[in-house]
Amino acid sequence: MSLTVIGTLAYDTIETAHDKREEILGGSAVYFALASSLFTETSLVGVVGEDFSEEHVQAMRAAGINLDGLEIAEGKTFRWSGRYEPDWNTRHTLDTQLNVLEHFDPKVPEGQRDAKFVFLANASPQVQARGLDQVQDPKFVMMDTMNLWIDIAKDELLALLGRVDAIVLNDEEARMLTGEDNLWTAAAAVRALGPSLVVLKKGEHGAFLLAEDWRFVVPAYPVVDVVDPTGAGDSFAGGFMGHVASSGAASPEVLRQAMLYGTAAASRCVEAFSTEQLEGRSLEEVQARRLELIQMITP
Amino acid sequence: MSLTVIGTLAYDTIETAHDKREEILGGSAVYFALASSLFTETSLVGVVGEDFSEEHVQAMRAAGINLDGLEIAEGKTFRWSGRYEPDWNTRHTLDTQLNVLEHFDPKVPEGQRDAKFVFLANASPQVQARGLDQVQDPKFVMMDTMNLWIDIAKDELLALLGRVDAIVLNDEEARMLTGEDNLWTAAAAVRALGPSLVVLKKGEHGAFLLAEDWRFVVPAYPVVDVVDPTGAGDSFAGGFMGHVASSGAASPEVLRQAMLYGTAAASRCVEAFSTEQLEGRSLEEVQARRLELIQMITP
Repeated sequence: MSLTVIGTLAYDTIETAHDKREEILGGSAVYFALASSLFTETSLVGVVGEDFSEEHVQAMRAAGINLDGLEIAEGKTFRWSGRYEPDWNTRHTLDTQLNVLEHFDPKVPEGQRDAKFVFLANASPQVQARGLDQVQDPKFVMMDTMNLWIDIAKDELLALLGRVDAIVLNDEEARMLTGEDNLWTAAAAVRALGPSLVVLKKGEHGAFLLAEDWRFVVPAYPVVDVVDPTGAGDSFAGGFMGHVASSGAASPEVLRQAMLYGTAAASRCVEAFSTEQLEGRSLEEVQARRLELIQMITP
Repeated sequence: MSLTVIGTLAYDTIETAHDKREEILGGSAVYFALASSLFTETSLVGVVGEDFSEEHVQAMRAAGINLDGLEIAEGKTFRWSGRYEPDWNTRHTLDTQLNVLEHFDPKVPEGQRDAKFVFLANASPQVQARGLDQVQDPKFVMMDTMNLWIDIAKDELLALLGRVDAIVLNDEEARMLTGEDNLWTAAAAVRALGPSLVVLKKGEHGAFLLAEDWRFVVPAYPVVDVVDPTGAGDSFAGGFMGHVASSGAASPEVLRQAMLYGTAAASRCVEAFSTEQLEGRSLEEVQARRLELIQMITP
């Protein structure tokens, strides 16, 4: 079934302990859609500047992403620059240039307003809410967020939490949002704020899903050579939502498999800079990793 | 089948963010044997001082632990004192008084020298080796270690690694022993030093087992109210080895279940100070947690 992602497109400059890349394709909606489009047609709603390369537009189209909702605005594309510590767990933002993102007002194309599955990728809760306002009667809405919004737009974030079915967030964000140190307690506290499903990501330690009366834990796929973790969370969400949307419903069985698909997609993403390991991939490759994960966790 | 543990008995003084206890029963062999004796008769080889309480001897006997190998030496029982940070992940040793442990020379009783399953709990690799020397033709030997021995007795530790079937160690110890940051790479490097099975513990993030051509990952049981993590690793090893010994062989199927039993036993241990949550427990209670874990990880 139809899947729409509303989020950012970016040019990232990234430093790791081993390497550096400048002005490479990134952004939450880009990583998400490259992963989710392996499963189902994905429509992207976002904004870029006039400097956004035609090559990158073509790469996304080649992956099967519908770009009717891609706005080209006057000015420059959003830039983000960051540096990872050798352990990958600590990330320092070196520079952020909002550029066209500063006045981003998502416009869901007329033909996509009946989307049944919606992912609100990381953006301000106000932008996320304005995007969601344009979708009539969605079946399953999942959102992401980040520390910045918990810090500066908590009221808007809490209001949005009452409107979504699911949220995906990382350990640090869950603790910051709820004040709870224990991650299971934190996830339960997030559920109490609205979403019936909470997916909590723990980086190299995997992720878990907390629902009303069941839970599911999945380890990270054992990637030996991490090159760049940027986009791992968005690729996870893309694999997760891609499987849910292609299944047509968010049953417990589908959601458990979605956790495995998300984990498999994220493991691909981190093996190269930018979107290299997601572009031109097939669902079969993600399937193979999902099966490996199943072998690793089946008693 | 017969299971023997060689390790320490201690009186611990423990501070957490919420509470403090002085001179409570502890020690690697005590935690191990209380967990393993739920599964199979366990013989303990260790030393205490003349001050060791008869009440604690009786408590271990009541749990079904064979204490023929418990030596009562002149002097005082080993003391350890530590403090946990509120996140439980950081532990500061405040004081260590070796006392009778200083000249500990394990003596495996004549009738136990044919033990088939042996656990060398945390002690100096020299002491561990002298204990192992006394067991004729064991079927499955697992060892533990700690940072201190990696630091001050690495040669002896490496020699011992060539004599055991399995090792259980935590993330920090694995990184320190191998110089590898990635935990899967570190576990593979530990395997290359001798043991065909490496169990790597990650505290609240669970544990994994690496064998020659398979691996198994298990999350921690979601304990909401951690009271005192002391002994969690030894209880894990006790549940693990207890199941392996009671099964009579270390097949992949048995080892996968052993990971779940270890996790279930450790989760009990951390819910109270000292050995309170392990004493007087039944295998049924550990079984119940194992079944909950299976529900959490089955896709």
